[in-house]
Amino acid sequence: MLIDPWASSQVDYDKLVNQFGIKKFQDIIGKINEPSRLMRRGVIFGHRDYDKIIPLANQKKEFAVVTGMMPSGQMHIGHKMVLDQLKWYADKGATLSLPIADMESYAARGISLEKAKDIAINEYLTNYIALGLDLTNEKINVYLQSQNNLLKDLTFKISKRSNFNEMKAIYGFTQSTNLAHLYAPLTQVADILLPQIPENGGPKQVVVPVGVDQDPHIRLTRDIADKMNEEYKFKPPASTYHRFLTGLTGGKMSSSKPKTAIYLNDTPKQAEKKVKTAKTGGRESLQEQKELGGKPDECVIYEMLVYHLIDSDKELNKIHEDCKNGTLLCGACKARTSQLMKEFFEDLHEKQPEAKEIAKTLF
Amino acid sequence: MLIDPWASSQVDYDKLVNQFGIKKFQDIIGKINEPSRLMRRGVIFGHRDYDKIIPLANQKKEFAVVTGMMPSGQMHIGHKMVLDQLKWYADKGATLSLPIADMESYAARGISLEKAKDIAINEYLTNYIALGLDLTNEKINVYLQSQNNLLKDLTFKISKRSNFNEMKAIYGFTQSTNLAHLYAPLTQVADILLPQIPENGGPKQVVVPVGVDQDPHIRLTRDIADKMNEEYKFKPPASTYHRFLTGLTGGKMSSSKPKTAIYLNDTPKQAEKKVKTAKTGGRESLQEQKELGGKPDECVIYEMLVYHLIDSDKELNKIHEDCKNGTLLCGACKARTSQLMKEFFEDLHEKQPEAKEIAKTLF
Repeated sequence: MLIDPWASSQVDYDKLVNQFGIKKFQDIIGKINEPSRLMRRGVIFGHRDYDKIIPLANQKKEFAVVTGMMPSGQMHIGHKMVLDQLKWYADKGATLSLPIADMESYAARGISLEKAKDIAINEYLTNYIALGLDLTNEKINVYLQSQNNLLKDLTFKISKRSNFNEMKAIYGFTQSTNLAHLYAPLTQVADILLPQIPENGGPKQVVVPVGVDQDPHIRLTRDIADKMNEEYKFKPPASTYHRFLTGLTGGKMSSSKPKTAIYLNDTPKQAEKKVKTAKTGGRESLQEQKELGGKPDECVIYEMLVYHLIDSDKELNKIHEDCKNGTLLCGACKARTSQLMKEFFEDLHEKQPEAKEIAKTLF
Repeated sequence: MLIDPWASSQVDYDKLVNQFGIKKFQDIIGKINEPSRLMRRGVIFGHRDYDKIIPLANQKKEFAVVTGMMPSGQMHIGHKMVLDQLKWYADKGATLSLPIADMESYAARGISLEKAKDIAINEYLTNYIALGLDLTNEKINVYLQSQNNLLKDLTFKISKRSNFNEMKAIYGFTQSTNLAHLYAPLTQVADILLPQIPENGGPKQVVVPVGVDQDPHIRLTRDIADKMNEEYKFKPPASTYHRFLTGLTGGKMSSSKPKTAIYLNDTPKQAEKKVKTAKTGGRESLQEQKELGGKPDECVIYEMLVYHLIDSDKELNKIHEDCKNGTLLCGACKARTSQLMKEFFEDLHEKQPEAKEIAKTLF
């Protein structure tokens, strides 16, 4: 099985755990002080080497988190997951490194560097700030790949350690893939290793929270970290893997398919309406649902509550139970969820204008 | 036929002219005001699009010359040819762009960037200055590839316009070639196009004087200039091709084979001695040579005079004739040539210390 980070689809998570050596997150969660909501709820389902991060997070010792964003479309509510994780890590005292993959969006999607910068500021950084991450904090380093010379120089050194065969095996590139695209994963490897170069304080533990479609980058990075060990003493980066948020129509939520996604720049009214049209885990008829109960684990609405809208685990469990035993029906549940979503968006929209002003000052 | 710039060998120049569309220099030399010694003597034997350069050089209008050096060994007297051409172009009012290919020497030869910088200063720049090129002139731009961000950014954009197939066809790369090496020719393409980017004043005529083994880079550059025309309006670079200086033992003069080359850092005594041991176009016996005459066109000694040591064409013609008709014998000719070489080196060595001090200040 080949995981292609440029063409995501629904994924068999158990298979990934078995075939690619990703470890189950549930086996280590007990060691984590104050695990995050996404950890507790199984949204973060897998990891590599996370046992090396736990003692550092528990004791608020030095470590770094790297997570990139590719500026190629609109930020949707599924992306908020990354943000929630970053806020948790910031509380644990980690340094955050947030590359904006404008070189990749140019190479893989043909988006100009100017356009990519614009998207990064107006879509991603504005919403990161509006959602509560203080990007002006000195422990948070946001950068455009194309403007980071240390990154480009590290990418060049990394490129000496790889070849076409390897890139083909991992990514399925062909001989007619443009060379910038062939090179893009090496830039991402460099993003992940960058916190460990001498200019950034040398070797340290790094964790990369990603969707599982990004695992090829993690494996490549760990391999290259090993190859460059003699010169840099890189520690292989740890990683965590989170499930995708299901799209409104049942497939994956996608930046490029408006009907599948709630965009963070949607109005509160649009967001509310989108929730109301989403696919639920309801039965064919009201009668049937009252008798058999709903299927919350196949419900987009329930997922919204799990990932984003309900803080209390106890309250969430109650919803899950009431749905399964037929007490809570889809109409009422949707009404409440769409109301919560509307409130979330009202709050977000109130914060966006000021956030945008700050975002503009970052480059 | 595949020309491999990383493994040069003796070359059938006529074949190149026929197969690769290189034009004969002798057909256009008549249009050039004050053609250089290397032009007049047929050392520069081929070109592409040089008819576009001629009116600019004749009228001292704006154009640029690009010629790189790869810092991987010692500079030898064969390399002086490039320098002589640069001096001629400087007199014609051209802007000179002199990239030092430290990224290529790292990628292809594993030479560290620090070591490459050292070689560039002590071998190349010192001797360029000592041989009379004023590198502090504002119309001369010497740079290390690894320190030139405009270059690296242009290389990235170029990489989007090429793929593995193309690089394999031109350079014979395999799927296990390291990706830095695969990328190195694109950096050279960027070196050649760099004088034409908006930051450097926009589109202009550029000429690249090279040994014929570098023609793959020229063809690739002209192809990519065309592909990027819409954005940059690049003019396809012109080029000239010079013969290699024959090595002392008859093959190619090589930086890495001490017996074949006179190094610019050799002492005058060493240089003198090397000339005395060089292969000549002499006959088996003195008797035979007096009867049949010598073969100056197969003589390393004569080549030294043509390329480097005799200014006057008239004087050179006389030597050629006297050799062919058996009047000038190898003993006397060698004695004179080695004396001229010794004097050349005495002058060079006197200038090297001050030149080195200037060279150190360039980066």
